Amino acid sequence: MKQFSQWTQPEKDAFHQKALADYQAYKSKGLKIDMSRGKPGPEQLCLSDALYHSVDEQHYKSEDGTDCRNYGGLLGISETRQLFADILGVKKENVIVCGNASLTLMFDYIGQCMIHGCGDKPWCRQDKIKFIAVVPGYDRHFSLAEYYGIELVNVPIHEDGPDMDMVEEIIKDPSVKGMFCVPKYSNPDGYTYSAETVRRLAKMEPAARDFRVIYDNAYVVHDLYDETDSLLEIFSEAEKHGHEDNFIEFASTSKITFPGAGVAAIAASERNIAEIKKRLTSQIISYDKLNQLRHSRVLRDMDDVKAQMKRHAAIIRPKFEAVLDILEKELGGLGIARWTHPRGGYFISLYVEQGSARRVGELCKEAGLTLTPVGATYPHGVDPEDKNIRIAPTFPSVEELKICAEILCAAVRVACSE
Amino acid sequence: MKQFSQWTQPEKDAFHQKALADYQAYKSKGLKIDMSRGKPGPEQLCLSDALYHSVDEQHYKSEDGTDCRNYGGLLGISETRQLFADILGVKKENVIVCGNASLTLMFDYIGQCMIHGCGDKPWCRQDKIKFIAVVPGYDRHFSLAEYYGIELVNVPIHEDGPDMDMVEEIIKDPSVKGMFCVPKYSNPDGYTYSAETVRRLAKMEPAARDFRVIYDNAYVVHDLYDETDSLLEIFSEAEKHGHEDNFIEFASTSKITFPGAGVAAIAASERNIAEIKKRLTSQIISYDKLNQLRHSRVLRDMDDVKAQMKRHAAIIRPKFEAVLDILEKELGGLGIARWTHPRGGYFISLYVEQGSARRVGELCKEAGLTLTPVGATYPHGVDPEDKNIRIAPTFPSVEELKICAEILCAAVRVACSE
Repeated sequence: MKQFSQWTQPEKDAFHQKALADYQAYKSKGLKIDMSRGKPGPEQLCLSDALYHSVDEQHYKSEDGTDCRNYGGLLGISETRQLFADILGVKKENVIVCGNASLTLMFDYIGQCMIHGCGDKPWCRQDKIKFIAVVPGYDRHFSLAEYYGIELVNVPIHEDGPDMDMVEEIIKDPSVKGMFCVPKYSNPDGYTYSAETVRRLAKMEPAARDFRVIYDNAYVVHDLYDETDSLLEIFSEAEKHGHEDNFIEFASTSKITFPGAGVAAIAASERNIAEIKKRLTSQIISYDKLNQLRHSRVLRDMDDVKAQMKRHAAIIRPKFEAVLDILEKELGGLGIARWTHPRGGYFISLYVEQGSARRVGELCKEAGLTLTPVGATYPHGVDPEDKNIRIAPTFPSVEELKICAEILCAAVRVACSE
Repeated sequence: MKQFSQWTQPEKDAFHQKALADYQAYKSKGLKIDMSRGKPGPEQLCLSDALYHSVDEQHYKSEDGTDCRNYGGLLGISETRQLFADILGVKKENVIVCGNASLTLMFDYIGQCMIHGCGDKPWCRQDKIKFIAVVPGYDRHFSLAEYYGIELVNVPIHEDGPDMDMVEEIIKDPSVKGMFCVPKYSNPDGYTYSAETVRRLAKMEPAARDFRVIYDNAYVVHDLYDETDSLLEIFSEAEKHGHEDNFIEFASTSKITFPGAGVAAIAASERNIAEIKKRLTSQIISYDKLNQLRHSRVLRDMDDVKAQMKRHAAIIRPKFEAVLDILEKELGGLGIARWTHPRGGYFISLYVEQGSARRVGELCKEAGLTLTPVGATYPHGVDPEDKNIRIAPTFPSVEELKICAEILCAAVRVACSE
């Protein structure tokens, strides 16, 4: 098939007219669909109904006899620490289980570095603090950094992870204090860092003595297919170079059980766990251990976790595939867009012609389809090339998604031929 | 009765011998009892058994139809905001309901002032920040301040609240940025601020433009008797002077339902709520709404709350009274100690002879009784007069408490006559 750029003007005009007609037809339907957030759908939430019944007046003690109703147990209950240790491939002693939000744990950890530092002066007493933002990436990482006044330096992601040549260059600047990573099924591309990338991350020798990677393993077990991406465990690699203090890992059950009522965890080196524990002593008496117990009684081990994730995949895989099919059918072979084919995670990343992503967003909005705000996958909401669109296919039904994808494709066709 | 100080030396010697014999008798029993923390006892926890069953696969939506399992609802669900509004006597719009720990909300709020300030430069960019510590007070307020490098200035509490003459003097120093208050059934004395004290707090004109009272209303409904202390609502008073931004109020269900698995809330002015909300946007997607719903289905209104608190009082009032009876019997009329008679809250405050509190703590410890570390009710764990001992009577059984109180009294008698 001849690519769009090679068409004659009359061919392009005809294409535009057809695209516009398709788009108008959808627009006239007065739809209202939200495909903006990586939010599980209601069918997925029902997979965790057992949580309601897993603790009660007979079952409120953890395996070591702790009364989960009362105060105490700053680092979380033993079995839930073990569960996250298994999920992340680390030791229980290196895990703290907390409340329902891993974002909060990242926010709090960076707050700790601001106030007390991590191997040098407190960040709030240093002139300028910079972090590497792997882009496109997760909007809330960026807004968290912005909250703390941290300047973000963009590094593009490739299929095997962040551009490590660039990373290794940028960290020669001692004001670069850290980096946000989503190493598995990255948000939004769905890329998993290769073994080589993980090894290079582990090997990094930043100029800053107080460098921390916010290693957000949000999709660590979130496979869509039996054939899964595999990710090298970061701490074992980092330890080879004595760099284990440079990484703070985060995970949660938000997309395993209930997004709003799950359990989140931190994994870190012994020294970092001790520092975090010192802060927690001033911050909280104990996190919600009943909810930790609720989870550990339902997700007893990795077999339970894997079985649960297979049930999720059975629901959301058809949603991903419905979108991918339509993208291929409507935009395939034209050379006007490319998109990712993730084997896990929560997003498909769509790249349109440079300078047209915002226009696509506007057209979708006018037709009643809410996308993730175009640009949100970059710091300050500005995609320098205005190309990237994050597709979040989990919440709408398959039927709705097909319509979403059709509208989106029509909008892409309109925008590129305008 | 003649007071101890007026006794002859032989009388004092005999008293000491008797005290020592009593103390040794307890010590030889090899007991091990913990009376260190304000922790509800297991019978109290059973009062909240209904929470296990108040949400399930049929009941997961809040009254406005929000799916509490999923993401969303940054400020908490409507009915739980209303519940805390009723508890605190404020409007729902001025309340945010959060996770399980009010201490965390205070920690986070002070963190916000450190990073972004509250009407002046960020606190972390100012030279020195001081807070007023009303003493004796809550150890975790002090350790929180210490975490942030905030210097604490002691102001003594009287039966009607903090010494307001001193407070009004100290806030003329512009580096004094705030104050910790437990206005009702204060920790550890159990004093409730008088209407006059609340009015003077509301009227304060601190030199600092960025002054905040951490108004920790931890025991707002925690009455032991039908005749309760009453506390003037702070925001209505503050509004009369345009000072409503100076106060951030905190409360939780930790001692209403489950200490480790309750719901905490912030009440604040419209402007402060907007500032806090801005921070929360970077910090969390939403708090655990299922747990909020769980609570609001069991505690539907103030009648439910009051009934629940009466059930708590029925369990812990006899514990307070057992201790008070023994204090009176063993130490009454001797002029060697005084103690408070709270109508609510979680503590009795015991004042022994100047310079002997730590000795009492040591003696108790040697006899197997763990008290709150003596001095913990003062910043840096140092009671300048070494007089105050916090008694936490809620966790042990009445039988254990009687033994605790006997040991404690024996230790006081030994220490004062050594």
